[in-house]
Amino acid sequence: MKPVNGNTLRGISKALSRGDVAALEVVDHSLALAEATNGLLKSLITVTSDCARAQARSADERRQVGRRRGILDGIPYVAKDVFKTEGIRTTAGSKVLAEHYPQEDAGVVRKLAEAGAVLVGKANMHEFAYGATGENQFTGTTVNPWDQRRLAGGSSGGSAAAVAAGIVPFALGTDTGGSVRVPAALCGVTGFKPTFGLLDSTGVIPFCWTLDHVGIIAGNADDVSVVIDSLTDLQVFRTNGSLHSLRIGIPRGWTSLLEPGVRAGYELVVAVLRASGATFHEIDLPEHAESRTVSLTIQLAEALAYHSPLIASSGAQYGPDVRGGFVLGQQLSAESYVQCQRLLSAYRASFTRHFETIDAILTPTCPVVAPETGSTRIPVGDQLLPIGNALTLFTSFFNLVGAPAVALPAGTDDKGLPVSVQLIGAPGKDIAILELARHLEQELARR
Amino acid sequence: MKPVNGNTLRGISKALSRGDVAALEVVDHSLALAEATNGLLKSLITVTSDCARAQARSADERRQVGRRRGILDGIPYVAKDVFKTEGIRTTAGSKVLAEHYPQEDAGVVRKLAEAGAVLVGKANMHEFAYGATGENQFTGTTVNPWDQRRLAGGSSGGSAAAVAAGIVPFALGTDTGGSVRVPAALCGVTGFKPTFGLLDSTGVIPFCWTLDHVGIIAGNADDVSVVIDSLTDLQVFRTNGSLHSLRIGIPRGWTSLLEPGVRAGYELVVAVLRASGATFHEIDLPEHAESRTVSLTIQLAEALAYHSPLIASSGAQYGPDVRGGFVLGQQLSAESYVQCQRLLSAYRASFTRHFETIDAILTPTCPVVAPETGSTRIPVGDQLLPIGNALTLFTSFFNLVGAPAVALPAGTDDKGLPVSVQLIGAPGKDIAILELARHLEQELARR
Repeated sequence: MKPVNGNTLRGISKALSRGDVAALEVVDHSLALAEATNGLLKSLITVTSDCARAQARSADERRQVGRRRGILDGIPYVAKDVFKTEGIRTTAGSKVLAEHYPQEDAGVVRKLAEAGAVLVGKANMHEFAYGATGENQFTGTTVNPWDQRRLAGGSSGGSAAAVAAGIVPFALGTDTGGSVRVPAALCGVTGFKPTFGLLDSTGVIPFCWTLDHVGIIAGNADDVSVVIDSLTDLQVFRTNGSLHSLRIGIPRGWTSLLEPGVRAGYELVVAVLRASGATFHEIDLPEHAESRTVSLTIQLAEALAYHSPLIASSGAQYGPDVRGGFVLGQQLSAESYVQCQRLLSAYRASFTRHFETIDAILTPTCPVVAPETGSTRIPVGDQLLPIGNALTLFTSFFNLVGAPAVALPAGTDDKGLPVSVQLIGAPGKDIAILELARHLEQELARR
Repeated sequence: MKPVNGNTLRGISKALSRGDVAALEVVDHSLALAEATNGLLKSLITVTSDCARAQARSADERRQVGRRRGILDGIPYVAKDVFKTEGIRTTAGSKVLAEHYPQEDAGVVRKLAEAGAVLVGKANMHEFAYGATGENQFTGTTVNPWDQRRLAGGSSGGSAAAVAAGIVPFALGTDTGGSVRVPAALCGVTGFKPTFGLLDSTGVIPFCWTLDHVGIIAGNADDVSVVIDSLTDLQVFRTNGSLHSLRIGIPRGWTSLLEPGVRAGYELVVAVLRASGATFHEIDLPEHAESRTVSLTIQLAEALAYHSPLIASSGAQYGPDVRGGFVLGQQLSAESYVQCQRLLSAYRASFTRHFETIDAILTPTCPVVAPETGSTRIPVGDQLLPIGNALTLFTSFFNLVGAPAVALPAGTDDKGLPVSVQLIGAPGKDIAILELARHLEQELARR
């Protein structure tokens, strides 16, 4: 459950920089752990050993001649198998793309390669990102590193499990309704969905163009910040504010839906923030049922539009979750899709107005800890929700408004399973929300 | 057929500025002409006499104390009846809104009021902008000032006819597939559809959010430029280039579809531009049939989404064109709408690339001159097209790509009916296309 070499991305990078360890050693360790754990965890669909070793050797050569490229040079990572990788099989977790070898790298994969980061594998996922459990009949279901009987979550479950298992210090994921944040929460790591469009989605097999966000999973918020700092023009570490006088919005009614262990973790975070001088203010967000309909309508219609040529040629090879979505999607009228896009514009306008009186929003990431594999319905409040609805209950709205959101570990419940809270900022305020996450992480570490 | 007081907007403004004429005289003249012609032309649904006279008096008072607000102060204009006007009936040409008195002005109406322009009436239009002929069973069909047996076109037909008849020097219209440019062409005036979003569409009753553009109709390109200069932050008159070395794109195959009189006008413009040093280069745009399907799908789906609450309460009051559109719209799937939106993104990308090798595109505005009232099908090339398809054949694609486009008079045919050409620029290059239009206008005036 520890990061590579028992250390963080920042720690490994320092060791590489000083020459305490070679990139090839780090990458070999990463590959060995991937191979050793994959039979059980199924966190990776493809392990890219040869390519990774070659890249690691290049990183070592650069360092030896004083040309280390920066903090990511020589650092191993995995990419969810929706990120196209030149010459490396990219399946999106589906039999439909079992023999898909892209001719180009996704934009963010190319950028990481330029920074010297070393791709060690393609991470397992819910088929075509079409679900939040990570269950997959074709690639096998990713197992939660904290408890083998439990789900890692999804759709970026392999990315979260690989980080949680210490195979890599960070991973690429995508998040359309919670697909970075939910598995990060269930696996006890940090997941960040930036503002819509901040990270390049070129060369990423889409689920839904309107709501897809490229995101980062890492062991902690500081490491997430390091990756965002490297991948964007944002100067993530430019400020160093405090939690004092921070105004935090709390969505009315959400905390009544938590299971006890999650509530305890959440309340600990509230207490820590309050002790640091933050104030809390209830805010109203749209009803879960309404915003869920908006999400689903947009997701299903856009997914169908993307997949319809593939359905014609390979329909029988899709798994049951995806096929079920297509059937629903075919019932949707253009009018209802347009209505949902209009609601989405209204959501964005009213969401942005909240930030006139608050600085950030705090929620639990999921109402429950990692469910057991095979669960279909989850008790939430006085309802029994389909597992996918339950896991994304607190995450999917923030895709509709394109806001930056971090899922951050907040201790464990009495079964020893990770609990997670979510911090959400105003769209475009990625730096501020990452800074808040790092502060909170430090405060929690002191407890 | 002359502008107010036989002069242009610029001319009237100079006269007002010098005190040669009072705003009240100009506005009274405008109102008198409106009342005198409206029984025949039906260019206005509402004449706002009292309000206009009060505004004109204020303009005169401002001038007397040396506080004239600028070039539009005291200038009369009309707004298509989709622009909401506070306390003034705004019908969108429909019985459904027969008693609709808005509580606020549309954004651009407010801006014009701030500039001192005087609203003298609400212009007639195709019901809810849902057609290109201007035929309307509820408000009456606007008549072409050049020939009473012919259509003024639409949907902003009243705006174009009011300018052509000299009632006002400029008018507000909207353009979703050609609704500013087509009536401007048929009525022998200048119509400008700016880059998508350049003019504020707040408070404008929508046809289709994705494709609606607020536009300007005036007697000539210079007056259009004056209005755009007043309404935006663009410095429209900042440059004064030449036509020399201008590279003009000509869509392949379009000119074979012109009737002889239109072809002669178009070829005159080509000759004038060539004599000024411009070069011509064939370009390929998407097939008319494909881009028309994309337009229609997006229009019908979005119109239905806007109207569905009104259909529930007032369905029987819609006219036949709108009702027919709703029936088609209800057949559209969310998937097909999304596919069309994707095509639209592709169109925008490839359209923008054309401007790496050309500076502007030249096309005829319509393949025909103003058709007779009651026409249903129009011969175009070797086909017989529904009249709406024929009139918008060369205009609707440029709504899909959001590009600035000016329809400019280019003489008359052998029946004495106006011919028009269209100049299109790269999205965002409104200044350049207006400048080109002014140059061409000057060159044509010299002939």
